[in-house]
Amino acid sequence: MKTHTDYLLFETEARQEFVRITDDVSRIVAASGVTDGMVLVSAMHITSGVYVNDWEDGLIHDFQTWLEKLAPAGLPYRHHQTGEDNADAHLKRTVMGHQVMLPITRSRLDLGPWEQVFYAEFDGQRPKRVVVKVMGI
Amino acid sequence: MKTHTDYLLFETEARQEFVRITDDVSRIVAASGVTDGMVLVSAMHITSGVYVNDWEDGLIHDFQTWLEKLAPAGLPYRHHQTGEDNADAHLKRTVMGHQVMLPITRSRLDLGPWEQVFYAEFDGQRPKRVVVKVMGI
Amino acid sequence: MKTHTDYLLFETEARQEFVRITDDVSRIVAASGVTDGMVLVSAMHITSGVYVNDWEDGLIHDFQTWLEKLAPAGLPYRHHQTGEDNADAHLKRTVMGHQVMLPITRSRLDLGPWEQVFYAEFDGQRPKRVVVKVMGI
Repeated sequence: MKTHTDYLLFETEARQEFVRITDDVSRIVAASGVTDGMVLVSAMHITSGVYVNDWEDGLIHDFQTWLEKLAPAGLPYRHHQTGEDNADAHLKRTVMGHQVMLPITRSRLDLGPWEQVFYAEFDGQRPKRVVVKVMGI
Repeated sequence: MKTHTDYLLFETEARQEFVRITDDVSRIVAASGVTDGMVLVSAMHITSGVYVNDWEDGLIHDFQTWLEKLAPAGLPYRHHQTGEDNADAHLKRTVMGHQVMLPITRSRLDLGPWEQVFYAEFDGQRPKRVVVKVMGI
Repeated sequence: MKTHTDYLLFETEARQEFVRITDDVSRIVAASGVTDGMVLVSAMHITSGVYVNDWEDGLIHDFQTWLEKLAPAGLPYRHHQTGEDNADAHLKRTVMGHQVMLPITRSRLDLGPWEQVFYAEFDGQRPKRVVVKVMGI
């Protein structure tokens, strides 16, 4: 069995930003030498997420509008009594999910035709990490 | 270490339909010969999900009503400017989740008494796939 | 390849209660002898979840208030026609997620600085289990 671990670094310009990372994950899978197995892609910070969905700007806009409705910024969250102002970012990343497991078959990500992996930043403009761990044969 | 990969195919009659797949996953786990490990069950399309919850028709109805309230169909989503009409399906599947990892212990799915695995279709009436990948010893 | 399986038991005093379990999972990882791999932490009951987020009481309060708004108790859910009264618990656990995969690197949970693992009980005061399965080298 092989394992291989790498990290992706992000420091987004905007506070909220979705970044496509499918190719970055593919590169790490190729470097691992794993031909059959799985790769975990998981946000290491608690105000960002990782999800799989469509690479279409309109839909990304819809996701962001929808999340703002479900988990609005600017409410008097109790978390803000600590001096923080990002409680909504914790909630939004919970809706999107913070990690995915991607199957690897014949040395490649075994994804459907429209599946793309995204990093979803909800409290950016600071350094963040995503762990990518490959496991397989 | 062993790996074993299979795919489940769906083409639901209704646009939205939840299908219990616990037995299908169990069959694939048995075919894998893995006695201890994990199995990933993951939707390969981005308008359907995979989740674990109760096998009770009333609750399934409650899930569907609730999702319609959280992520309504028929809103002027920007995604629809591409000609699509299924933005709500992308959002609904995000709430339910698109994949699960199930533990395998003593050659069987190691599930609690009420845990059942479901495929949740939100834009059906067309062919869809779920990847099932077993990994273990 | 090594695997190692253990179970955490809960019987919360309150109906709804969030319990930090990072140290319990770490202990199981240490007992497994796995130096590089992953650990699955998954609720075996369908009215509780497992999630990763901040260990801060204000935010935990915000999560609970938010979930009550998204998936209120006391509505005339169809699931309640079976005699149950916990449909909202099924919905709430779906928002939070019912499982996480944690990477293990150099014999330890490979978590970011603020990542903590929680068990989220939404229908407690009865015995519940979480499965913890370690896989790696």
